[in-house]
Amino acid sequence: MPLLGLLPRRAWAALLSQLVRPPCASRTGAVRCQSQVAEAVLTSQLKAHQEKPNFIIKIPKGTRDLSPQHMVVREKILDLVISCFKRHGAKGMDTPAFELKEILTEKYGEDSGLMYDLKDQGGELLSLRYDLTVPFARYLAMNKVKKMKRYHVGKVWRRESPTIVQGRYREFCQCDFDIAGQFDPMIPDAECLKIMCEILSGLQLGDFLIKVNDRRIVDGMFAACGVPESKFRAICSSIDKLDKMAWKDVRHEMVAKKGLAPEVADRIGDYVQCHGGVSLVEQMFQDPRLSQNKQALEGLGDLKLLFEYLTLFGIAEKISFDLSLARGLDYYTGVIYEAVLLQTPTQAGEEPLNVGSVAAGGRYDGLVGMFDPKGHKVPCVGLSIGVERIFYIVEQRMKTKGEKVRTTETQVFVATPQKNFLQERLKLITELWDAGIKAEMLYKNNPKLLTQLHYCESTGIPLVVIIGEQELKEGVIKIRSVASREEVAIKRENLVAEIQKRLSES
Amino acid sequence: MPLLGLLPRRAWAALLSQLVRPPCASRTGAVRCQSQVAEAVLTSQLKAHQEKPNFIIKIPKGTRDLSPQHMVVREKILDLVISCFKRHGAKGMDTPAFELKEILTEKYGEDSGLMYDLKDQGGELLSLRYDLTVPFARYLAMNKVKKMKRYHVGKVWRRESPTIVQGRYREFCQCDFDIAGQFDPMIPDAECLKIMCEILSGLQLGDFLIKVNDRRIVDGMFAACGVPESKFRAICSSIDKLDKMAWKDVRHEMVAKKGLAPEVADRIGDYVQCHGGVSLVEQMFQDPRLSQNKQALEGLGDLKLLFEYLTLFGIAEKISFDLSLARGLDYYTGVIYEAVLLQTPTQAGEEPLNVGSVAAGGRYDGLVGMFDPKGHKVPCVGLSIGVERIFYIVEQRMKTKGEKVRTTETQVFVATPQKNFLQERLKLITELWDAGIKAEMLYKNNPKLLTQLHYCESTGIPLVVIIGEQELKEGVIKIRSVASREEVAIKRENLVAEIQKRLSES
Repeated sequence: MPLLGLLPRRAWAALLSQLVRPPCASRTGAVRCQSQVAEAVLTSQLKAHQEKPNFIIKIPKGTRDLSPQHMVVREKILDLVISCFKRHGAKGMDTPAFELKEILTEKYGEDSGLMYDLKDQGGELLSLRYDLTVPFARYLAMNKVKKMKRYHVGKVWRRESPTIVQGRYREFCQCDFDIAGQFDPMIPDAECLKIMCEILSGLQLGDFLIKVNDRRIVDGMFAACGVPESKFRAICSSIDKLDKMAWKDVRHEMVAKKGLAPEVADRIGDYVQCHGGVSLVEQMFQDPRLSQNKQALEGLGDLKLLFEYLTLFGIAEKISFDLSLARGLDYYTGVIYEAVLLQTPTQAGEEPLNVGSVAAGGRYDGLVGMFDPKGHKVPCVGLSIGVERIFYIVEQRMKTKGEKVRTTETQVFVATPQKNFLQERLKLITELWDAGIKAEMLYKNNPKLLTQLHYCESTGIPLVVIIGEQELKEGVIKIRSVASREEVAIKRENLVAEIQKRLSES
Repeated sequence: MPLLGLLPRRAWAALLSQLVRPPCASRTGAVRCQSQVAEAVLTSQLKAHQEKPNFIIKIPKGTRDLSPQHMVVREKILDLVISCFKRHGAKGMDTPAFELKEILTEKYGEDSGLMYDLKDQGGELLSLRYDLTVPFARYLAMNKVKKMKRYHVGKVWRRESPTIVQGRYREFCQCDFDIAGQFDPMIPDAECLKIMCEILSGLQLGDFLIKVNDRRIVDGMFAACGVPESKFRAICSSIDKLDKMAWKDVRHEMVAKKGLAPEVADRIGDYVQCHGGVSLVEQMFQDPRLSQNKQALEGLGDLKLLFEYLTLFGIAEKISFDLSLARGLDYYTGVIYEAVLLQTPTQAGEEPLNVGSVAAGGRYDGLVGMFDPKGHKVPCVGLSIGVERIFYIVEQRMKTKGEKVRTTETQVFVATPQKNFLQERLKLITELWDAGIKAEMLYKNNPKLLTQLHYCESTGIPLVVIIGEQELKEGVIKIRSVASREEVAIKRENLVAEIQKRLSES
C-alpha cells in the first residue's frame, strides 16, 4: 500500500473520515474545508514534536556521533586503506549522498535493508546512497567512461534494524576500490584479492581467510541441482545466510518459504559443504553434475586462472574456494569473494568478538549497462573494506589494553608563571604558529602555572615554552620537557629552530 | 498547505476525485475500492519512472560528482585547512548526516534555504544537516561537554536554488573550527580570526579582508535607530544582503516588505556605511545614539579588546570594523566576522570571478542552552571556511593557466618488451607493492612496449622497470626514467633499494 505509507496511519484515518463525509459544520458554525482539516491534523502533529525540543536531545535511531577518540582511530585506519588503494594506482572520486531513487531501485536483491528516501519537496524522488558501487556504475555510464581504477571513501545509509553492539549502524563508512574496463581475464580480479590481503595484513587484525566463488558456479550449481531459474536469486539470498545460520535453517527457508523441492535443497546441501584450494577447483571440473553446465565450467576455468595469479602474488594460501559463498547483492556476475577473520584476537580479559566478514566484493559486468541508453557494458570488478567492523575491533582491543590515544597533535604549550603576561604569551604563540608549530595556550588572562603544566600532562603535549619577567628581561625563553621536567633557557631568536630540532628528534 | 505538498499535484487530484465521488464500477463491472485506486495512481507514477531507467541517467538537481581532478585539488586544500586547525589544537569529530528535524528547526533565520527532509518511513522526522554548527551544539548539550576545541569537515545540504556557475551547490563541504567553553573575553574570538588569516594566506588566494562587527552593536544600532524589537532579526536579514544588493534596494525591502518607517531606515543607512579600524570603534563610543545603548557599548568594548589581541597576532591590518555586517543566521550573539577576497586574481585571459565571502563565523553563546533541558549555556565561537568557493577559485585558476594535475600517485610502471611475460610482471610488481612502492602494470597478457611507455607518459609515472628474456637470464631489471628516457640495468636484489633512492631524490 504505497500511498498509505506516505502519511502516518492516524493522520490518514482522520483525513479519510473528513473527505468521505460531506464537509461538516464546526461548533462555531463555520464550515471547515478539507484542506484545513488536513492541515490541522499535520500541524498538531508537528507541534507535538516542537513543543518540548529541550527534552528530546537525541540523534536518529541507528546513528551515532564520532568522538575525537573515534576519529583518531578512524584516521589511522583510513590512511592505511587509502594508501593501499593509491599504491595500486587508484584515483579518488566522490558522488552525491543521494541519487534519483530509480537509479538505486532493483539493484540490491531481497535481503537489502530499506533505503532512506527523501521527502518529495517539489522536485525529484531521491534516496540516500545505499552503497558506493551503484553510484560508481551510474557515473561510468553517465560520463561514458570505459576504463577507470578508482577508490571511494564515503558514508552510505541503510535503514536496517541496527545491531549496534556489533558495530553495525544505519549510517556507516565504506571504502571501495574498483577496476572498470575490458581487460584480459582475472588479472584485475586477482589484484582485488591482493589488495584485500595487503590491507588486512597491514591492519594486523590477526589471521584471515578470503572465501572465493563465482556467480556462474553458484547458478550452474543451482541449475545442476534442479532449481528453477526463476528462483535463482531468491535461493542465492538464502545461501548467503550460511555464515550466520545453520544449514538446516537455511534449508528450511528454501523449502518452506521459497518453495524449493526438498531433494533439490539436499543436492545443494552437498555442494555448499565443499571448500578448499585449487585442488577443489580441479575436483569440481570432474563433478558429474557441474561438468555438464556451461556456466559452471566457465566459472571454474576462471577460478583456475585466478589461483595461478594468486600464487604469483604470494597469497594463494589465504584464499579458499568455498561453494557456500553466494553474496546477497543482485549485481554480481562472476567471481565473488569475502574476507573473514579466522580468530579474533582474544587476549586475556578481551571479550570474544563476532565480527563476520571484514571485506568483500566481486565482478559485476552488467551493472553499468543497466544505466547506458544502448546497454553498452563496462565490465567491473571491485571490493569494499568493512571499515566499520575494523574500527570496532581496533577500538575494543585498545579498550581492553587500556590504551589511550591523543586526540590532538599539539607539540608546544605556551605558559607563564606570572600575572599580566597575556600579551607576551600571545606574541610568543604567534611566532610558533607562523613557523608551523602546533601550539596551544590557556584562554585565561592569568592562569596558574600548575594549571598550565597539568593541561600539558593530561593532553600529552611534550614541550612547554615559558615566558616570565626574568625571561623577558634576558631575552630568553625557557623550554621545558613535560616528560623529564628538565628546563633550559634558549635565546628567543633561536627558539623556533630549537623546538623544530627537538620535535624532529622525538 | 503542508498535506498537499506530500503528493504530486496530479496524483492528488486523481485521488480526490475518486474519494469524493462514490466508488464507481469499472468497465469490467468489478468495484474498485479507494485504496486500490490510490495505489493504482501511485503505481503508474512509479512505473513511468522505472520503465525507461536507461534514459534518465542523471544526478539530483544542484548536486555533482567529484571527478579525480576535483578530488586532487580538494585534497590539497583540505589538507592545508585541517593542518591549520590541528596547529591550533583542535580535535576532529563527526556527526550523522541527518538529525531529528526538531533539532534543526528555527535555528537558521528567514533567509536560510530549505532543509532536505527525509520521508517518514515509520520512525522519526529527520532532516539532512544544514550546517555543522547546530549538530556541534547538540553534541555538546547531549554529552554535557562544557569545553571543547574541535574541527569538523563534512558535507551539508541546503535546498537553495543552485547557482552552479558560481560554485554553489545544494550539497557542499564545510570546514568548521569552534571553541566551546567559558573563557576570558575575546581570546578565543581573536584566535578564530588568526586562523582565518593563516588559512587564507596559506592558500594564496590573493589579498583579503575580514569584516568584523558584533550582534550587540547591530541590535544596539537597531534600537538606537528606532527599530521595534520584534523586527530585529528580520531587519538583520535585510542588512545581511548589503554585500549583494545596493542600499536603496535593501532600504526598499525594509520599508515596503518589512514595514519599517522610512526615517528609521535612513538612520540605519547612516551607520551601515561606516567601516574602519580600531579608530572607528573609538568613534562609535562617542556616537550620541549608540553610546546610550548598553548592548552596543558592551559590543564596542569587546571589539576594542579584540583589536588589541589582533595587533599582538600581527593581523590587525587585515581586519575592518564594518557596521554593515549583520550575518543571516539567527544564533549569533556576539562578535561576527566574514572574510572577503579583495581582488580576484585576474590574470590575462582569466574570467572575472565573483566569489563573495570565503570564510565567516562568530560567537553564539545561546545555542547549546537551547538543547539543554535546564538551559545551561556553553559559550561558543567559531568559523567556517567556504571551501567550495575556494575549490572553485583554484580550479578556475588552474584552468586558465592550463595546469594539469596528476590524479594518481603511481611511482613505477612494470613493463615488458616480450610476449608471455605476464607471470614475471606479476611477480615483479608484487615485490614493489610489498615494499610499499606505488606501482601499476597493464592488465593485458601481451601488451606492446610502446603502449606501456605511452601509458606512463600520459599518466605522469616517472619510472619504468622493464623485464624481458635478457634481463631474466642475467638476473637484472632495467630501470628507465620516463623523462630522460635513460635506461640502466640493476641487479634484481637491489631493485627496491635503487627505486627508493631515486624516489627520495626526486
